[in-house]
Amino acid sequence: MRGITYLLSAVVAMACVFMYMAQASERADAEAAPIFGIKIPPGYRDWRVISVAHEEGNNNDLRAVLGNDVAIKAYREGKLPFPNGAVIARLAWAYVSSEENNKVFGRAQSFVSGAPINVQFMVKDSVKYASTGGWGFAQFKEGKPADEALHKTCFPCHEPGKARDFVFTHYAASP
Amino acid sequence: MRGITYLLSAVVAMACVFMYMAQASERADAEAAPIFGIKIPPGYRDWRVISVAHEEGNNNDLRAVLGNDVAIKAYREGKLPFPNGAVIARLAWAYVSSEENNKVFGRAQSFVSGAPINVQFMVKDSVKYASTGGWGFAQFKEGKPADEALHKTCFPCHEPGKARDFVFTHYAASP
Repeated sequence: MRGITYLLSAVVAMACVFMYMAQASERADAEAAPIFGIKIPPGYRDWRVISVAHEEGNNNDLRAVLGNDVAIKAYREGKLPFPNGAVIARLAWAYVSSEENNKVFGRAQSFVSGAPINVQFMVKDSVKYASTGGWGFAQFKEGKPADEALHKTCFPCHEPGKARDFVFTHYAASP
Repeated sequence: MRGITYLLSAVVAMACVFMYMAQASERADAEAAPIFGIKIPPGYRDWRVISVAHEEGNNNDLRAVLGNDVAIKAYREGKLPFPNGAVIARLAWAYVSSEENNKVFGRAQSFVSGAPINVQFMVKDSVKYASTGGWGFAQFKEGKPADEALHKTCFPCHEPGKARDFVFTHYAASP
């Protein structure tokens, strides 16, 4: 009986070590985006919802905009500029007509998230990113960052949003 | 000095009591939806994202589908049927063209979440809701439940989704 207890303890301990190693290697392997040096924030898929949107045109996506705790707090308190440490994530998926939903509705009206397109991050650090409004920008697809040319377009595009600290997305109130 | 410490302790204790009372009264005041007797789950706006969607037609909305911890775990593990305790929330906002975003994109392509429309919940309890596939349904707008007639339409509409435990929304993978 004691032998089984020891064996179980050893197995649990080894499992913990492996989990730690897996997490550590995940972090070590993650590639930083060019220019701003941003890596994918661990656990961002679990962040809370700021809002949702649909872009037509070349994007043709459905998107969720999520925030880490610092960003959500600032949004809910209506605080501008965002404090250092705020991170906003924009997740985009293909804009796909849902045949199975349309059958239920009895008409073609339902569009859902299809294949993942990419994820973008805005990271607030007023010192590190002083030359780009205090924000660093990054875009990843399947864990790989986009190239430098793409990252050069981020801030110029966000510049018109200066009055709202370069952030376009408004907070969606609870229904 | 000791007097100040006592005073501070008393203030903190009173603050805790008031916070508790405020939360308790929030729960007591909440009105239950007809038929299924569901109240708005506290903190649902903080739940994690299952997916996002857009409905045209009479709905004309943008929606976020969120899950409590039980629902998210089941989704990620691909488990069907959903276990008891799973709750899925569907938040809908008006589908609104964004003038400020369109200016930045240089074309009319951007649709964002406008005014809140309503929130719907599916609550899994295979005993309590045995006659409706193990799910209870509820719809609220600004904290007020919709009427009984509306709630009678929920299950018939979800019935075609029986093969996926009456849930239409698929989990959106991380980009």
